[in-house]
Amino acid sequence: MQERGEDTREKILSVALKLFSERGFDATGVAEICEQAGLSKGAFYHHFPTKQAVFLNMVDTFLKGLDQDLLSMPEGSMTTVPELLRHMARRTEEIFSLANGRLSIFLEFWAQARKEPEVWSRTVEPFRRYREMFATLIRKGIHEGTLRKVDPDAAGSALVSLAVGVVLQGVVDNQGAKWHEVMMSSVELLLSGMEI
Amino acid sequence: MQERGEDTREKILSVALKLFSERGFDATGVAEICEQAGLSKGAFYHHFPTKQAVFLNMVDTFLKGLDQDLLSMPEGSMTTVPELLRHMARRTEEIFSLANGRLSIFLEFWAQARKEPEVWSRTVEPFRRYREMFATLIRKGIHEGTLRKVDPDAAGSALVSLAVGVVLQGVVDNQGAKWHEVMMSSVELLLSGMEI
Repeated sequence: MQERGEDTREKILSVALKLFSERGFDATGVAEICEQAGLSKGAFYHHFPTKQAVFLNMVDTFLKGLDQDLLSMPEGSMTTVPELLRHMARRTEEIFSLANGRLSIFLEFWAQARKEPEVWSRTVEPFRRYREMFATLIRKGIHEGTLRKVDPDAAGSALVSLAVGVVLQGVVDNQGAKWHEVMMSSVELLLSGMEI
Repeated sequence: MQERGEDTREKILSVALKLFSERGFDATGVAEICEQAGLSKGAFYHHFPTKQAVFLNMVDTFLKGLDQDLLSMPEGSMTTVPELLRHMARRTEEIFSLANGRLSIFLEFWAQARKEPEVWSRTVEPFRRYREMFATLIRKGIHEGTLRKVDPDAAGSALVSLAVGVVLQGVVDNQGAKWHEVMMSSVELLLSGMEI
């Protein structure tokens, strides 16, 4: 019974992800999710109090996955900060291909964040956290002697902004460029002004 | 009569901009636009065949404004490419403050672009054009001897990605950073790796 409950929950999440991604959050109703998932409304509301709750669950899963992808090489491993940044840039190919068309849900998060305070705080918090994380990395690079004394906060924000811009263009205009190459060459260009 | 028609048209556009911006495109109906604009549906449909047409008009106006803002210093004026790029970065303060809360409509454009081919082509085309425009600028900088021989396409894409990332974070998290300063320091950081 427990297992079946988990299956139902997963089914709701995957159908909702597809529909939100294709049509948007506002244009998708609980009725459509239930229809495509082959479930009753009762089954839906047994697992999620609202459509919004499904969405917030999705935001959390997405952000956890992103954290895991980005931090898959532990900071403590034997490498320099410039090499770690290059490693992260290379990994975007994988992130792009894994996420497939589903990365576009990202845009829905942002669009909803403007309207819903709860989505807002969950969407905005990781960006602030990433800016801080990258500032810390830059500080580490300066300390280890691989980076010159740039402003760590400015450099951290530049790296996050670059990544956000590449991912967003990649989501909307997948065929417009080789986005993981853009990511790698852009990081390389930023590094060329910072590396000693 | 002509003038009154123009007024009605402007009224529809400004009310729709406010509603799309606050609630999103999908969640806004023609009925609400008419109600808040104090107009009949007949008056609405006299000016726009669909809600989508209002939206496309808005996309065009937004992009024309962006072009004008970015290109306000003619390329031919007596300045070097690094100075021109710095000038553009400084101008983002103005762009952020002029656009006020309305810049968030940007996110709606992108979210709709995934769903509507016509919005897609109008939204994506300028980004491709900006990437090319900045690649051309970089080429000019190399030619005039102010920039070292970087890959112009890569550098152009890096600049556009950076700008897109800063603007998008600025839209969603206005208070999270001094975004025009982030823009200026990021461009400075990129330039420090390219300038001779």
